[in-house]
Amino acid sequence: MIKAGIVGATGYTGVELLRLLAPRPDVELLVITSREQQGRSVATQFPNIRGHVDLTFSAPDSPALKDCDVVFFATPHTVAMTAAAELLEAGVRVIDLSADFRITDVALWESWYQTSHLAPHLVKEAVYGLPEVNRELIRRARLVAVPGCYPTAVQLGFLPLIEAGLLETSRLIADAKSGVSGAGRKAVEDFLYCETGESIKAYGVSGHRHHPEICQGLSLANQGSVGLTFVPHLTPMIRGILATLYGQVKAGVAVDQAQLQTLYETRYADEPFVEVRPPGELPATRDVKGSNRCSLAVSYSPDTETVIVLAAEDNLVKGASGQAVQNMNIMFGFEETKGLEVVALLP
Amino acid sequence: MIKAGIVGATGYTGVELLRLLAPRPDVELLVITSREQQGRSVATQFPNIRGHVDLTFSAPDSPALKDCDVVFFATPHTVAMTAAAELLEAGVRVIDLSADFRITDVALWESWYQTSHLAPHLVKEAVYGLPEVNRELIRRARLVAVPGCYPTAVQLGFLPLIEAGLLETSRLIADAKSGVSGAGRKAVEDFLYCETGESIKAYGVSGHRHHPEICQGLSLANQGSVGLTFVPHLTPMIRGILATLYGQVKAGVAVDQAQLQTLYETRYADEPFVEVRPPGELPATRDVKGSNRCSLAVSYSPDTETVIVLAAEDNLVKGASGQAVQNMNIMFGFEETKGLEVVALLP
Amino acid sequence: MIKAGIVGATGYTGVELLRLLAPRPDVELLVITSREQQGRSVATQFPNIRGHVDLTFSAPDSPALKDCDVVFFATPHTVAMTAAAELLEAGVRVIDLSADFRITDVALWESWYQTSHLAPHLVKEAVYGLPEVNRELIRRARLVAVPGCYPTAVQLGFLPLIEAGLLETSRLIADAKSGVSGAGRKAVEDFLYCETGESIKAYGVSGHRHHPEICQGLSLANQGSVGLTFVPHLTPMIRGILATLYGQVKAGVAVDQAQLQTLYETRYADEPFVEVRPPGELPATRDVKGSNRCSLAVSYSPDTETVIVLAAEDNLVKGASGQAVQNMNIMFGFEETKGLEVVALLP
Amino acid sequence: MIKAGIVGATGYTGVELLRLLAPRPDVELLVITSREQQGRSVATQFPNIRGHVDLTFSAPDSPALKDCDVVFFATPHTVAMTAAAELLEAGVRVIDLSADFRITDVALWESWYQTSHLAPHLVKEAVYGLPEVNRELIRRARLVAVPGCYPTAVQLGFLPLIEAGLLETSRLIADAKSGVSGAGRKAVEDFLYCETGESIKAYGVSGHRHHPEICQGLSLANQGSVGLTFVPHLTPMIRGILATLYGQVKAGVAVDQAQLQTLYETRYADEPFVEVRPPGELPATRDVKGSNRCSLAVSYSPDTETVIVLAAEDNLVKGASGQAVQNMNIMFGFEETKGLEVVALLP
Repeated sequence: MIKAGIVGATGYTGVELLRLLAPRPDVELLVITSREQQGRSVATQFPNIRGHVDLTFSAPDSPALKDCDVVFFATPHTVAMTAAAELLEAGVRVIDLSADFRITDVALWESWYQTSHLAPHLVKEAVYGLPEVNRELIRRARLVAVPGCYPTAVQLGFLPLIEAGLLETSRLIADAKSGVSGAGRKAVEDFLYCETGESIKAYGVSGHRHHPEICQGLSLANQGSVGLTFVPHLTPMIRGILATLYGQVKAGVAVDQAQLQTLYETRYADEPFVEVRPPGELPATRDVKGSNRCSLAVSYSPDTETVIVLAAEDNLVKGASGQAVQNMNIMFGFEETKGLEVVALLP
Repeated sequence: MIKAGIVGATGYTGVELLRLLAPRPDVELLVITSREQQGRSVATQFPNIRGHVDLTFSAPDSPALKDCDVVFFATPHTVAMTAAAELLEAGVRVIDLSADFRITDVALWESWYQTSHLAPHLVKEAVYGLPEVNRELIRRARLVAVPGCYPTAVQLGFLPLIEAGLLETSRLIADAKSGVSGAGRKAVEDFLYCETGESIKAYGVSGHRHHPEICQGLSLANQGSVGLTFVPHLTPMIRGILATLYGQVKAGVAVDQAQLQTLYETRYADEPFVEVRPPGELPATRDVKGSNRCSLAVSYSPDTETVIVLAAEDNLVKGASGQAVQNMNIMFGFEETKGLEVVALLP
Repeated sequence: MIKAGIVGATGYTGVELLRLLAPRPDVELLVITSREQQGRSVATQFPNIRGHVDLTFSAPDSPALKDCDVVFFATPHTVAMTAAAELLEAGVRVIDLSADFRITDVALWESWYQTSHLAPHLVKEAVYGLPEVNRELIRRARLVAVPGCYPTAVQLGFLPLIEAGLLETSRLIADAKSGVSGAGRKAVEDFLYCETGESIKAYGVSGHRHHPEICQGLSLANQGSVGLTFVPHLTPMIRGILATLYGQVKAGVAVDQAQLQTLYETRYADEPFVEVRPPGELPATRDVKGSNRCSLAVSYSPDTETVIVLAAEDNLVKGASGQAVQNMNIMFGFEETKGLEVVALLP
Repeated sequence: MIKAGIVGATGYTGVELLRLLAPRPDVELLVITSREQQGRSVATQFPNIRGHVDLTFSAPDSPALKDCDVVFFATPHTVAMTAAAELLEAGVRVIDLSADFRITDVALWESWYQTSHLAPHLVKEAVYGLPEVNRELIRRARLVAVPGCYPTAVQLGFLPLIEAGLLETSRLIADAKSGVSGAGRKAVEDFLYCETGESIKAYGVSGHRHHPEICQGLSLANQGSVGLTFVPHLTPMIRGILATLYGQVKAGVAVDQAQLQTLYETRYADEPFVEVRPPGELPATRDVKGSNRCSLAVSYSPDTETVIVLAAEDNLVKGASGQAVQNMNIMFGFEETKGLEVVALLP
């Protein structure tokens, strides 16, 4: 049994970690912190947790964090980069769900997040926690940066094509649709029911913080830089991301539908949490609600020589907390699927 | 390990049974039937199940049903009453999620369902599967009638008051709000997204089939007939029932808030799936989405001498398939909570 | 043509006033104020208004308000009571959508709103703007207090029964379901999409500010005090209120369905914005979305001697801004239905 | 005053025509037909219409249709092509909201709709009713084919770029998101609340009937064929289409953001129902709910030399019935905006 702590567990990724960790006999939840809620019962904040977790929120600097084997940061950016070093020194392994350690180019990070990075030396050490790419590095990591929700879907969707060298990588397009929980649990007018319900809109067209993260991952696969047009959309649903990806086939390369299907099935044959849909099926976000699965379909449009990939995930699970637990499982030698074989809640 | 079959698993209670049973190592899903889908893979119908259940739908008269230890009927009414006898004779225990065996007064059943009952002898034998009332009978039952979704919430909400003799039972009021999944998965205009979304309405004011079922249960607790005004409402959400119950305190009886709180906490102290909220908290249906919990709160309005009870459940879980599995656990000597300690999916 | 001003037009009742007033050739929108948005174009805040209203938000103390014939307050409580006197003295008629002048018992108001009333002399003068009760007083009023959203539905629903003396008025029950827009447009966690979507809950069971307002109106009709149990519910939809009302028929009084239908049809025969549904029809909130109509149905349950009334309205129209415009029409001698004959948006 | 008839008014485009036409003093609704509902009051089918339209559904072959000046077909495809000729001969002008006369290449139409066209001679005569392109032809037309919902948004979005010759037109991409009302009001499982709520998915990736219609329009503007990848998505909302369009700038052509903004503003300067958002604003479908407006924004991504256009419309208004009325206004010499200056319902 390992001991786990969660820093900042009052948001949606926090309660999702609790949902996934509470039933596990092999993980003891030792401490859950929250600046605003300290001293209050976790069950008062999250009634679904009552009877499953009996803890009270601790202060963010709780010494119990150092008694943990692993600490999750379910915080806004800048918190983990401030606190991670001390925990690592105390021998605690850290899994950060925020953006602090995702971008290896510190200057690039600083330009997107408009603040100085306070732990640049840890950026070097941090492992990008996408198991489908970095499984071996994760196993040995002290510090894991869990990928963002959009980057998980977009990378898993594009990787087989890019690794196979099939696409004209200077003009990738990712049209992504996210549920409102992606915006977190903060009192902001824009995310009120009456502002987001029964309506869809694009946002961040001129730039979104997940853009450099996606490009970083795809460039590594491409062994060279990529050009990406990324347009996220706010969709009237609580959970889920659907990324619709468009890639132009390289001049002179011939592809067909069957070959693409095989490419995807082969690439993800051993991946427990990536599903390639049979030909003719397209994923809906409801197919993966509450599950750690990313569900993919690939199509080819010969007229326009365009490959269309659909990638559906639950942004709070495979796009955040589920992936964090998957990383933990790998790091601590648990079965990778432990506690994550939850069937999606449908309908 | 026991062997289980499901008849008619193409609706929402069917897929919910699959979600709850698929992960269990102690239950083998042997056969799943469907008239229209026979020969088709279950995963094609329910993509969330792919990788968890590998079965193909069988014909409704599949001989494999007789090899089961337990068969669930997740069918419209009239199916179970036709098929149950043969299975029972073959030694199979039957858990019926439909209405066929819920009402002990066969004539009353026939008047509400407008058809002759084909197995009146089994009605006598059937045990009404509300564990909070009938746990011991369920343990020995060959045939269990799983309560309806509304009846579960309304009975669990009213029972402590009625058992304690506090209410004027001739004028109970139950104002119940249900998500659209209560209507099942059938191609009917009334339940289209555009007909039910962003709108609430009452229905069945002049009579609803759950009315006699609720009255039967409350009358037993009351040791005498009850009068109930029951108004169900169709609410723009997929899952969940919230029952708001109003009861007038008997003349000459004095109650107060603290006493009511204690009454409820005491009544349900040992019930794993009934939660009494602490004073000041009120249940929302989201608190129990996907879980087998019924969440209760009780309030007193001294000005009008009215007790107000709120009961929230997931209509597909505690209101149907979860309760069916709870019954199965009791019948077969499993831990009653086995496979049902799912944390609600919040948000 | 009259000149109109709106104080505090950045919320949902504000934009709804704009929607209803902008197309009118007989009403000139002279000034729209907002403390936070002053200097900003109204169309930037409300894109639906672009091209219909070209104004910029003014400061709340804009002198142009005194040049208006009528000023609407679409503000939280306490604003109108501070500012109304000065406008009235300047000859401006005031229509207040807030609660400041709804309750004639100032001490009662102060106990519910936890603040001193700053214009108690105006409370006496103010006319409660429910045209179906106070049409003649409204015609001559300088100051109108527009009823709350719940009070409009509950009063219109109960009035015929109470005026006819049919009910045991000490134990009325109003179970009301409101869309989220009733909470206004404020950055509060509780009303985020992910907190309110796909879930229903009761709130304010121990007391809601609309309770004294409803009781005041029903007591007047009853010529004596009434007892009311009022339970509001937050429903996952943007607009709409459905009030389900339960009344016990007085001992010794005989009623039947046909008589109740006639009672309602007669009471509202000349009311342009109250619709009594034909027997067998029940109102849904979608039937009145965007319209100024309150749609009613009445049923009788002989077993429990209980009358059940359903009242549906759009909380932002008949429950707020539409009713405000209806009052304006009456006050200024326009056709009462002018600009309000909008067909509901269905679906 | 003109006399109007509607064939097949039991669907969503039918009730939307009623909403827009009922308030008009210059249009008399003479006859509304429906095969299944004949003899039934229109208000029973559409409660929002009660008090606004007093008609009863007539049989589809009602002779009153020939007494109309204009007849709208709000029917599935194949109805108008059967019935239009006889009406035209009788001097009635026909506005068809279905697909029967949209595609000028009859063989292409037949391959997509899998049936023989029964009125190919009328296809030649029919005018494609997109006023922003064909206003003068519409004015004189006897027979107008109202564009489909997706084609309206996609064409209005792409036209300025294509007319200006800026794009590489062999690889246009349209990622379109539609509310569920686009599927019509039919009893089909796929469009139940519980199948479509809280989930988004793509469909028709391998081919959608609006594809040839869009290509036809864009090819005309391009004076040469175009290549289009079109991926429609089913979005959990009742109304609205958002089309996100991606176009690659032609090699050697330099564009910038300001120039694109001017291009759009100039192209649509005189269009009453096309709005170009100011720089920095992006349209949401809620901005146009219930209105006849198509709201556009254009952005440029220099890194990928990609132009991104967002086009939002209400699929039932500018995407169907509103556009039909706009056509009627043009055909009969009414002010083009008559009855269509409805402010969107927000929130």
